Amino acid sequence: MLQTGNSSGAALFEAAETLRKARNIVILIHMSPDGDAIGSSKALRLAVEKLGKKARVLCSDPIPAKYDYLPPEPPEEPMGEPDLIMALDLADEKLFGEKLRPYLGRVQLCIDHHFSNMHYAGMTALFPEAAATCEIMAGLLKVLNVEIDKDIANCIYTGMATDTGCFRYSNTRPNTLRTAADMMEKGAEAAKINKLLFETDTKERLELEKRAMETLEYDYDGRVALIYITLDMLRGSGADDGELEGIASMPIRIKGVKAGITIKEKSPGVYKISVRTTDDVDASAICGALGGGGHRAAAGCQCEGTLAQAKAAILAAAGKGLENDA
Amino acid sequence: MLQTGNSSGAALFEAAETLRKARNIVILIHMSPDGDAIGSSKALRLAVEKLGKKARVLCSDPIPAKYDYLPPEPPEEPMGEPDLIMALDLADEKLFGEKLRPYLGRVQLCIDHHFSNMHYAGMTALFPEAAATCEIMAGLLKVLNVEIDKDIANCIYTGMATDTGCFRYSNTRPNTLRTAADMMEKGAEAAKINKLLFETDTKERLELEKRAMETLEYDYDGRVALIYITLDMLRGSGADDGELEGIASMPIRIKGVKAGITIKEKSPGVYKISVRTTDDVDASAICGALGGGGHRAAAGCQCEGTLAQAKAAILAAAGKGLENDA
Repeated sequence: MLQTGNSSGAALFEAAETLRKARNIVILIHMSPDGDAIGSSKALRLAVEKLGKKARVLCSDPIPAKYDYLPPEPPEEPMGEPDLIMALDLADEKLFGEKLRPYLGRVQLCIDHHFSNMHYAGMTALFPEAAATCEIMAGLLKVLNVEIDKDIANCIYTGMATDTGCFRYSNTRPNTLRTAADMMEKGAEAAKINKLLFETDTKERLELEKRAMETLEYDYDGRVALIYITLDMLRGSGADDGELEGIASMPIRIKGVKAGITIKEKSPGVYKISVRTTDDVDASAICGALGGGGHRAAAGCQCEGTLAQAKAAILAAAGKGLENDA
Repeated sequence: MLQTGNSSGAALFEAAETLRKARNIVILIHMSPDGDAIGSSKALRLAVEKLGKKARVLCSDPIPAKYDYLPPEPPEEPMGEPDLIMALDLADEKLFGEKLRPYLGRVQLCIDHHFSNMHYAGMTALFPEAAATCEIMAGLLKVLNVEIDKDIANCIYTGMATDTGCFRYSNTRPNTLRTAADMMEKGAEAAKINKLLFETDTKERLELEKRAMETLEYDYDGRVALIYITLDMLRGSGADDGELEGIASMPIRIKGVKAGITIKEKSPGVYKISVRTTDDVDASAICGALGGGGHRAAAGCQCEGTLAQAKAAILAAAGKGLENDA
């Protein structure tokens, strides 16, 4: 099969052609699945079923309960040997997890929007300019000439909304908004989905946020803001690990802050540190100083010792980072 | 002039015709101006200037500093007697405020999206299905054949984003998203604007949120959540009244909560109460019991006495509201 790593329309037609020929399709998504992985895989399963094919979505982790409003996966029935093993929104075999291990090295088609895609599949239809794999999926279903119904529209809307923070982030492009408009016209319950995904907090999450905000401190004339969450705080709030999502973006929201730091006690004496920065400060350089890494605006590292030591180390690194970029 | 209160395209063409004939235009917007009033008026001023006309935007209150990224209004120069007095996003003469008093009863053309528009103008082009007056403005500029440049695009994007909570609320319709896509293609700096308007908090606002969340209590088996903000808390946080925006929507975000109550001490012994509810509970009935009113999902009332009295009164009303709707 052809190795295509570009974002030309040709890749989409080729992917469609591969799908048309298949009868039994296995769709793999990454562990810790997010709205885009879940939405794109459900949309494609529903679509190929309309074309008379069999398909199954496989993931190493369970689907988080907050996506229960999406159409459920049917019970796993024997479906015979798959004639197409494909992956969606899955940039790297490292993200397969335990359950997908039998498929390592065997993926024939991958459709993805991650710039960092490792091209582990026989054919990769990569569209890094797409905000979400679901945005690509909308185009693919057009090529496949599948009628988008309300269920599929909800799936595709969900993936685009989650990957863009509901159309707030810089990855949102005109085509993302137009595709969302199309999905609304096909029946996507945008307001209901937005409320569920973006305007709902659990009591435990709120309690955790409150406790985290009580630790807020400013350094370097307010250019650095730091919060921490200890295991005791997490337990005390009643929240679980899954409810930590997005906490790391709280300190960088504060006006004037150029580096927002979140320290999370992972296990006793082990601290995971997340750094978020504004355009003019390099988060990956700050975390790199402590053996970590990541992107310019979002990076991470790990420290062992006491909380005070972790704070001192990351604040020193942040200070140097501010100097370099000032 | 014709009294048109419908949302037909004809109203837009009529409005355009009125604008084409005018030379000196005064554009009024409501007091406590929001992103939609500001964005739509700036967009129209820039547009009619491109058509060789003079225009001035008037508002009883200053434009909040967070909109400083939009093109500034030019210094007020003498512009002769206006031959068109119009209003944008201005539903009711009650919202004129002090500075606009000379224009009471004199507005010739009003363009608005508020269902509650009082039809105080000679001609009202009302489009209640539009998410924002800025969404109407994009259509009007098309009819006027004005090229939308980056400045105008930023104005129109701003109004649509602010009135929809960045495309989250139920007033967002496909045309809203498509118009936002058009504005991005005309140069609107969507990511920058979203970050400024939706992802930035002041230290004082965060401090106030923290203090407000410390007062959080649940009643009626978690179906009611209540927070309060006293004058002391407001002073202690360093926040000003302008930074209270959106606080009232915090308690209703909590999963399982059907009525979210926010009590704000307005002056010593006077409490302004905001109630937000889910679909199945009527906020206006709850507030009506205390002499207030509003919409089904968002209403308000006022109580005098002690904080404890205000809490007891609104909790009793909320309890009855829950019963009626259960």
